[in-house]
Amino acid sequence: MPVLHQMQMSGNCYKVRLAARQLGIALALKDYGLHDGATRKPNFLARNPNGRVPLLEFDDGRTLPESGAILWYLSEGTRLVPTDRWERAQVLQWMFFEQYSHEPYIAVARFWLSYAPKEELEKRRALVPEWHARGNAALGVMETHLAHRQWFAGARYSIADIALYGYTHCAAEGGFDLGAYPAVRAWLGRVAGEPGHVPLEARW
Amino acid sequence: MPVLHQMQMSGNCYKVRLAARQLGIALALKDYGLHDGATRKPNFLARNPNGRVPLLEFDDGRTLPESGAILWYLSEGTRLVPTDRWERAQVLQWMFFEQYSHEPYIAVARFWLSYAPKEELEKRRALVPEWHARGNAALGVMETHLAHRQWFAGARYSIADIALYGYTHCAAEGGFDLGAYPAVRAWLGRVAGEPGHVPLEARW
Repeated sequence: MPVLHQMQMSGNCYKVRLAARQLGIALALKDYGLHDGATRKPNFLARNPNGRVPLLEFDDGRTLPESGAILWYLSEGTRLVPTDRWERAQVLQWMFFEQYSHEPYIAVARFWLSYAPKEELEKRRALVPEWHARGNAALGVMETHLAHRQWFAGARYSIADIALYGYTHCAAEGGFDLGAYPAVRAWLGRVAGEPGHVPLEARW
Repeated sequence: MPVLHQMQMSGNCYKVRLAARQLGIALALKDYGLHDGATRKPNFLARNPNGRVPLLEFDDGRTLPESGAILWYLSEGTRLVPTDRWERAQVLQWMFFEQYSHEPYIAVARFWLSYAPKEELEKRRALVPEWHARGNAALGVMETHLAHRQWFAGARYSIADIALYGYTHCAAEGGFDLGAYPAVRAWLGRVAGEPGHVPLEARW
């Protein structure tokens, strides 16, 4: 059984758990603490020199980091990745958007505002307005897209939706108000209603 | 002929030009200035609500943003994307790594140090050490990977190499010294020696 090296509260790790659960792929979870620096120690760096979770490790020792790559690997050829070439490109468009224009502001604001020691947040207090401005810009892009569409890529739920759900559904923990984004809120409800959906708190 | 909305000096746009050139896909280029805000104006935002280049536009009006998604769309089914599922996941691993852990530091340092008005750089001077620390961390991850390998994913040159070449080859413009990364420098030479390679300055 593959081992998912993870932090339970990480939205990036949640994405992998959620997709695996919906695909019926069993994973063993190996947990790391938020503040113990375990992913920067030699034992972990030997598995992922970039020092980050999620990391998927197979029985034969192969390892795969990057939530987007793990989602693609687990889901290619399943209902969670379209067969149409144009729709596949759109899946990746939204996954890259999430990692570049969304996660660095929404996930980062959530971490420092809700999960970091207060004195560490205070050192970064001056950055909060920029996180909120850029995070809201990303939410605005999502709202525009969803105004006339049910899902991010193609006509069905896909790993693009999972990738964007990971940190959007808990954006309030980063100080974001989803009140101004009705299409985003409706889409969050559709994602949560998909068969096999599990919340962030769920183990595999 | 598809239109690539682009900035000539952008490494993200260069990646698309380079892959298209090596695949023999003709593109028309529509240029935007670095400092004129044209990608934030309504005419452009109607094509890409995220306000960024590169953006690929087709004759029928379809548009595709995100350099990684464009690279995948143009290259899937060609020699630049492996057929093996595991190797494809590794291509995406490095493309996501580049956009999350490399570009935000190396490309950003290059922009502010070499392409922005001096007074704008001065406002951000305090950020330079963090850009350099994190950018060097990314170069270290690349050096570790390349110590015993020729290419980033699988046994051949792929869009993972193109994605990482985009800003690594011009990292000196961001104040990075590649002297400490001999495997990276050797790899840069291999990429530049691939058939059909063109420099960043080349038009299509």
